[in-house]
Amino acid sequence: MPPPDGPSALYEQVADKIEKLIRSGALRAGDRIPSVRRASAQHGVSVATAVQAYISLENRRLIEARPKSGFFVRPQFRMDVSEPKISRPAKPAALVGVGNLQTRVFDAARLPDVVAFGAAYPGPENLPVARLSQIMASVARSAGARGVAYDMPPGCEPLRRQISRRSLDWGSNLSPDEIITTCGGTEALALCLRAVTKPGDVVAVESPTYFGVLQAVEEQRLRALEIPMHPRDGMDLDALERAVKSRRIAACLATPNFNNPLGSLMPDATKRRLVEMLAKREIPLIEDDINGSLAHSGNRPRVAQSYDRGGFVLLCGSISKTLAPGYRVGWVAPGRYYDKVKALKITSTLATGSLPQLAIAEFMANGGFDHHLRALRRNFAAQIHTMREAIAAAFPPDIKLTRPSGGFVLWIELPAKVSALELHERALAQKISIAPGPMFSAKQDFRNFIRINCGHAWTSRLEQAVGTLGRIVRKMS
Amino acid sequence: MPPPDGPSALYEQVADKIEKLIRSGALRAGDRIPSVRRASAQHGVSVATAVQAYISLENRRLIEARPKSGFFVRPQFRMDVSEPKISRPAKPAALVGVGNLQTRVFDAARLPDVVAFGAAYPGPENLPVARLSQIMASVARSAGARGVAYDMPPGCEPLRRQISRRSLDWGSNLSPDEIITTCGGTEALALCLRAVTKPGDVVAVESPTYFGVLQAVEEQRLRALEIPMHPRDGMDLDALERAVKSRRIAACLATPNFNNPLGSLMPDATKRRLVEMLAKREIPLIEDDINGSLAHSGNRPRVAQSYDRGGFVLLCGSISKTLAPGYRVGWVAPGRYYDKVKALKITSTLATGSLPQLAIAEFMANGGFDHHLRALRRNFAAQIHTMREAIAAAFPPDIKLTRPSGGFVLWIELPAKVSALELHERALAQKISIAPGPMFSAKQDFRNFIRINCGHAWTSRLEQAVGTLGRIVRKMS
Repeated sequence: MPPPDGPSALYEQVADKIEKLIRSGALRAGDRIPSVRRASAQHGVSVATAVQAYISLENRRLIEARPKSGFFVRPQFRMDVSEPKISRPAKPAALVGVGNLQTRVFDAARLPDVVAFGAAYPGPENLPVARLSQIMASVARSAGARGVAYDMPPGCEPLRRQISRRSLDWGSNLSPDEIITTCGGTEALALCLRAVTKPGDVVAVESPTYFGVLQAVEEQRLRALEIPMHPRDGMDLDALERAVKSRRIAACLATPNFNNPLGSLMPDATKRRLVEMLAKREIPLIEDDINGSLAHSGNRPRVAQSYDRGGFVLLCGSISKTLAPGYRVGWVAPGRYYDKVKALKITSTLATGSLPQLAIAEFMANGGFDHHLRALRRNFAAQIHTMREAIAAAFPPDIKLTRPSGGFVLWIELPAKVSALELHERALAQKISIAPGPMFSAKQDFRNFIRINCGHAWTSRLEQAVGTLGRIVRKMS
Repeated sequence: MPPPDGPSALYEQVADKIEKLIRSGALRAGDRIPSVRRASAQHGVSVATAVQAYISLENRRLIEARPKSGFFVRPQFRMDVSEPKISRPAKPAALVGVGNLQTRVFDAARLPDVVAFGAAYPGPENLPVARLSQIMASVARSAGARGVAYDMPPGCEPLRRQISRRSLDWGSNLSPDEIITTCGGTEALALCLRAVTKPGDVVAVESPTYFGVLQAVEEQRLRALEIPMHPRDGMDLDALERAVKSRRIAACLATPNFNNPLGSLMPDATKRRLVEMLAKREIPLIEDDINGSLAHSGNRPRVAQSYDRGGFVLLCGSISKTLAPGYRVGWVAPGRYYDKVKALKITSTLATGSLPQLAIAEFMANGGFDHHLRALRRNFAAQIHTMREAIAAAFPPDIKLTRPSGGFVLWIELPAKVSALELHERALAQKISIAPGPMFSAKQDFRNFIRINCGHAWTSRLEQAVGTLGRIVRKMS
C-alpha cells in the first residue's frame, strides 16, 4: 500500500488511465490491450511499473491474461440489460409497516455463514481497519479523562472542525457551531424527523427509499407520501410540486446524492429547485448525504443544503459507509432547527461516544482520509461493475438493473411474477441474504424488486451465491 | 493504588473498621481515637500500617490530627439538619415542559472553569481511567474488523454475558438472550418508554425524578402523573395504588435503587408489592437501575425486576455512573417487550458502538470491576458525607437535606422564599452550576429545591464554591 497521505502510486495512475479507456468504450470487451513493453513506452514508465498496472487492472476485473496471448479486456456486464423505469407509487399517504420485515432481514444477516447481500455495509476489506485501530488505540491512551467523560452535545469539537473543513468539498461552508454529532446517521435522521414533525403529519419520501427512514416514519406515527424516483436523476420534482401544492407536507426526506437503493444522483439544478421549492413554503428538507462521498467517478457532488438560504435544510452525514460503521459516528447540520435537534439528541442518547469521535477526527486530520476515499470509490465502482456482470449472466434476461453513479448497492427489478419476499426465504435457505423490495416502500410496493449489497470485495464465494440466486429466480419466473 | 484485582491493602481494611465505628456512632465527633501505637496492637498490624490507616481516615475526612494531642473524630454534618418531607405533587397528570431548562443547565455546565454541581456525573478521579484506556487500546488493536463493523442488536455477546453473570448480584438471573445493549442508559429508558406507550398516554413517575425521564416523557407527548416520594424509602405505593385504580396508566417509571435526586432505597418488600401491583393490571414497569451498584454500605440491593414473573418489568442499566460516561454503554432487559424494544433500537441508533462494548466486557471480566466498585462506593459515601457537612456549615439553618443511602447526589430544600431558578442564575454568575428543583418535576414544582452533584473528590475549590453558594442563599432568604 502506498503511504496514506501520498498521491496514488505511479502504476495506479497508469491503471487509472487504461480503466478510463475501457469505461469510455475506447477499449471494448475482448479487445487485446497493448503488451507490457508497449505500455511501458506509451506511458513513459518502467516495464515493472507497467506490469504492476496490469495486475491492478486484473484485480479490478477489467482485464484478463490469456496464456501466451497477452491481456484482453474482460467481457463487461451486458449493456442490453435495461434500467428500471421511473417509479409510480400509489397516491394516498400511508402509515408505514416495514418494521417486522426489517427485523427479519437483519436477524437473518446475523446468522453465521450467510452471504450478506441483504444489509448495505462496506466489507471490512474495503475499510482502513489497521490504521483506524492504531489511531483508536493511540487516542485511548492519550485522551485520559476526556475519553471516559461525557462529551455533551453539540459534541466533539475537533470532529466538528474536521467536518466543517470538509463541507467546502460539498459546496457548503458549515461552521463547527452549526454541527451536532450523533450516534451514526440513523440517529441524525431520527432526530431531524422528530424535530420538524408531530404524529399524524405527512412527510414526502422517495420511492424507493432506505427502509431505515421508513421505519423512523412508522415509529413516529407519521404518514409517508411516496414521491416517484427516476433511477438516475432521483426525485421527480414535478410530482413533489404537485404534492406540496395540494396538501400540507410537514417535511421532505431526500437523498439527492446516491439514493439507497437506486444509486441515483440528482443534478445540481434540480437540487437548487428542490431547496427553493420547499423553502418557499417553509417546508423543512431532511437531506441524507450518507453516501455523498461515494461517487464512482468525478468530483464529490454538492449537497442540496449548499443552496439553502433560509436554514430549512437539515443535512445528515456519517462515516458508517466510508470508515467504520461500528464506531457509530454521524452528524447533522440542522439549520434553523438547531436548538430543537440538540435538545432531542440529549433525550435520545445524551451524548455521542467520546473516543470514537476523537479517533475519527484524528483519522480525518492525519489518517489519509482522502487517499482512502479515492481507493474506496474505485473499489465500489469495480464491485458494482462486477456484480452487474455476474447478475446479468446468472439471472433471466428480462430483469432490469440500476446503473448507480455512486454508493455500493444495486436495485434489481425481477420478472413480475417473482415475489421478492418468497425469494428472500428461498435464498436464506441457501444461506444467502437479500433485501426484498417491499422494505423500501411505505406501502410495501416493489414486490418484485430486490436490493443487493456490493460493499464486499469480489470473491468466488460471492460469484457462486449470485449463481445460486439466479437459479432460484429462474425457477420462480 | 493496590493492584486492580487484589484485595484491599491491609491499612485500608483497618481504616474501614474504624470508619464503621464512626459511622455507627460508636466513635463520635470530638472523640479522641486510640494512638497509632495502640491501634497497631488492637488490630495486630505494624505501626507503619496503623499510620497509613490513619492517613486514609484523614483523607476520608473522618478524623483530624490535632498538634501534640493525637487524632480526633471530625465534627460530622449537623445531625439536626432535617430531611425533606414526603413530596406532595399536585394531582392532575401534566404535559411536561422541562426541556429548555435542561438545555440551559447543560450548556452552563460546558462552560470552562465552572464548578460542576449541576450535572450528575462521577469525577474522572473516581474512575479507573488508566486501566480502562489501556483495555480500550488493547481491544482496538486486537479486535480488527470486528471493531469497525456494525454490532447489530441485541449487541455485543461478551458484554451481554458479563451483564448476565452480574445480574445474579441483583437477585435476578438474566440470560444474555434477554439483554439488548444500548447507547447508554438514556437510550435504554427512551426505548422502553416508546415501546410501551403511545402519545397522549399517562405514565406514573416519581416526584422528584431524574429530568432525563421527564424530557423523554415530554418529547414523546405523554402525560406525567407524579407519585409522591418518601426521601428514604422511595415511591409511595399507596398513592400509586390509588392512581392505578382510578385511571388508565400506560406505564410506571421508577428508580427503586437510589432515586436521582433523592438517593432513596425502596425496601425489598415494597419492590415486590410494586411489581405485583402493576403486573396484576398488566402495567409495564420501567425500572431505572443506573445507580444500583452505588450503595454506600451493605450489599448490592436487589432490583424490582427480580420479583417479576410475567415479564412486565423493563430493567435498564448502564456503566455511565460507575466506569465511563463517555463510552455510551447501557443495556435493557425488556421482558415481554423484547421484540419491540429491539426494533426501536434499530430505528433509534441502528447499533451500539462496537469497541466501547468490547472494552467494557473486558473490564468486567478482567479489569477488577468489583474492586473498583468497592472503592467507588466508599468514595461516594465520603464525598456525600463531606458535602453534607460543608452545606450544613455554609447554608442557613432552616434548610433540609437528604440522607442518601446510595449514589452521589444531594437534594436540598431551601427556605421557601428562595427561588432555585434565580439561585441558578446567581450561582452561574459566580461560575458555579447547580441543578434547580423545577427540572425534577413535570409541573416544575420543587421551586425552592436544588440538587448538588457529589461525584467529585473533595477539594478546597469545591469547599469554597459551597461557601459561595451558602452566602448567595443566605442573601436570598
